[in-house]
Amino acid sequence: MQSLADIAKLLEKYGKFYILAHKYPDGDAIGSSYALCRAFQSIGKKAKILMEDEIPSKYKFLERYIKKEDFEAEFIISVDIADVNQLGESLNKYSDKINLCIDHHITNKNYADNTFLDTSSASASEIIYALINEMGINVDKGIAECLYTGISTDTGCFKYSNVTAKTHRITADLIEKGIELSKINRILFDTKSRKFLKLESLIYNSLEYFFQGKCAMVFVTPEMLKQCNIMENEFEGIASIPRAIEGVYVGITIREKSLGVYKVSVRTSEKVSAVEICKQFGGGGHACAAGFTFEGKIDNLRMEILSCLEKKLCL
Amino acid sequence: MQSLADIAKLLEKYGKFYILAHKYPDGDAIGSSYALCRAFQSIGKKAKILMEDEIPSKYKFLERYIKKEDFEAEFIISVDIADVNQLGESLNKYSDKINLCIDHHITNKNYADNTFLDTSSASASEIIYALINEMGINVDKGIAECLYTGISTDTGCFKYSNVTAKTHRITADLIEKGIELSKINRILFDTKSRKFLKLESLIYNSLEYFFQGKCAMVFVTPEMLKQCNIMENEFEGIASIPRAIEGVYVGITIREKSLGVYKVSVRTSEKVSAVEICKQFGGGGHACAAGFTFEGKIDNLRMEILSCLEKKLCL
Repeated sequence: MQSLADIAKLLEKYGKFYILAHKYPDGDAIGSSYALCRAFQSIGKKAKILMEDEIPSKYKFLERYIKKEDFEAEFIISVDIADVNQLGESLNKYSDKINLCIDHHITNKNYADNTFLDTSSASASEIIYALINEMGINVDKGIAECLYTGISTDTGCFKYSNVTAKTHRITADLIEKGIELSKINRILFDTKSRKFLKLESLIYNSLEYFFQGKCAMVFVTPEMLKQCNIMENEFEGIASIPRAIEGVYVGITIREKSLGVYKVSVRTSEKVSAVEICKQFGGGGHACAAGFTFEGKIDNLRMEILSCLEKKLCL
Repeated sequence: MQSLADIAKLLEKYGKFYILAHKYPDGDAIGSSYALCRAFQSIGKKAKILMEDEIPSKYKFLERYIKKEDFEAEFIISVDIADVNQLGESLNKYSDKINLCIDHHITNKNYADNTFLDTSSASASEIIYALINEMGINVDKGIAECLYTGISTDTGCFKYSNVTAKTHRITADLIEKGIELSKINRILFDTKSRKFLKLESLIYNSLEYFFQGKCAMVFVTPEMLKQCNIMENEFEGIASIPRAIEGVYVGITIREKSLGVYKVSVRTSEKVSAVEICKQFGGGGHACAAGFTFEGKIDNLRMEILSCLEKKLCL
């Protein structure tokens, strides 16, 4: 793999860049691509961000930091994209034309002419910070706010296990660039839509406890979603609701996708393996977060899950 | 004021310390006192923490880091205490015997023989970190987990405006001591009690919107608290619920304390001053968080608040 210095030298040779971000862009996809785009523009190069989907409204405060311009690229960069299947339909045409991939996912498919992969970074934004410094470009408040958005969202505001000392040291540098961090954090982490709040309230009403409170189970039905007028991409995070209750080792979220078809999300504490539970139902995932799909009657689903959990929680 | 080096030299002379923390101890009171106690114990000095109230259960994982021992103190230190009225009844006897106060509150009353006040620190734990280093004591994993707890809770997990570059740099150092940050953060920030969840659900049901959703209002009654079997110190943070809704500039939480007596909390975005609103009702507070007490009929209270807000939100 090339060093960051090699990458910086490579980029010096070109003046017109497309920067590709993945579909359903999250804070890191947006923060890292916007920061790199602004960095190029700040030294007189042309740069343009391309992504399949519109950015979610909470990230729109970053839009003021880039100029929109039209041109043909000489060099195409992808950021935070592990696999070209994350480009989305409208960007598929670039899938075999990517000159440089900058990523932090261990699952990276090595699809580009050049790849800079750093799996020790919690976010692509951390790598972009290092690259911008390597290129000798000044990190101004705008670039810093883009990078802060990427870092804070990919780490759950510094809560997740991917956070390292480096994550915090870079953030310290960004704060010295004058970012308005409490304002940004309020937008990113302390704002709920009215729809989401309503759904949360309905979900709370469906809450049931089992095995002396070690298991909590909630239900989400198409009627509830309709009642809240809420779309698929507007209720991320509901699977973590039951597990977050004190004393709960296993949180189960059952979502009725259509008649007789249920998507089940399992979240567990260290004491119980979520993936082990889900494998029994043909699903998969990680130690603390896994899922499966069930077809049949809801009563059977409940009974089967509870009998599976009884063995694990009632020893 | 004395320098941190002077303080370190002063502490070198003594071998038996009481460390006082404030009543209703929060994460920073606990984290900073526990870290200092462990630091003293790690170099063979005797140290004991005194506080009026038991520590909340979520902080109990820190108890393993200190030894409990009985002795008479030669030197008494208070940490994170701005005023001796925060000691609580059982510690009142020490109020004129405090040899050193270590604090970060701008409201500090300068009540001790020696005071080290650093209002640029987001938490007392940041100061204790510097002091432990100044004393040449090794910061081990235990001390680091205590300090991380103090720093992360006093900053809302790095979200609030009190966070500085220093906050993040110290945290980076603590991570290098091997703290289990995702486990700690799950305990501190991602766990809700069943009681709290139930109260939240009842509060959601009371939610009303006014002025095209710019104001949201919720109610908390003694019956709701009774229904949830929840105590005064178990529902911190409810005042921020209505303000956190997308599009809301003013969030109002009305709590019926007793018949005809209401405690009103007002939380606002930058666009509206909370303290200005509350001053009209004889209350006080800050730009974004303020409150007042109202005696009278609930209908009159609602009407008066809404007519006050109408002028601010409907221009």
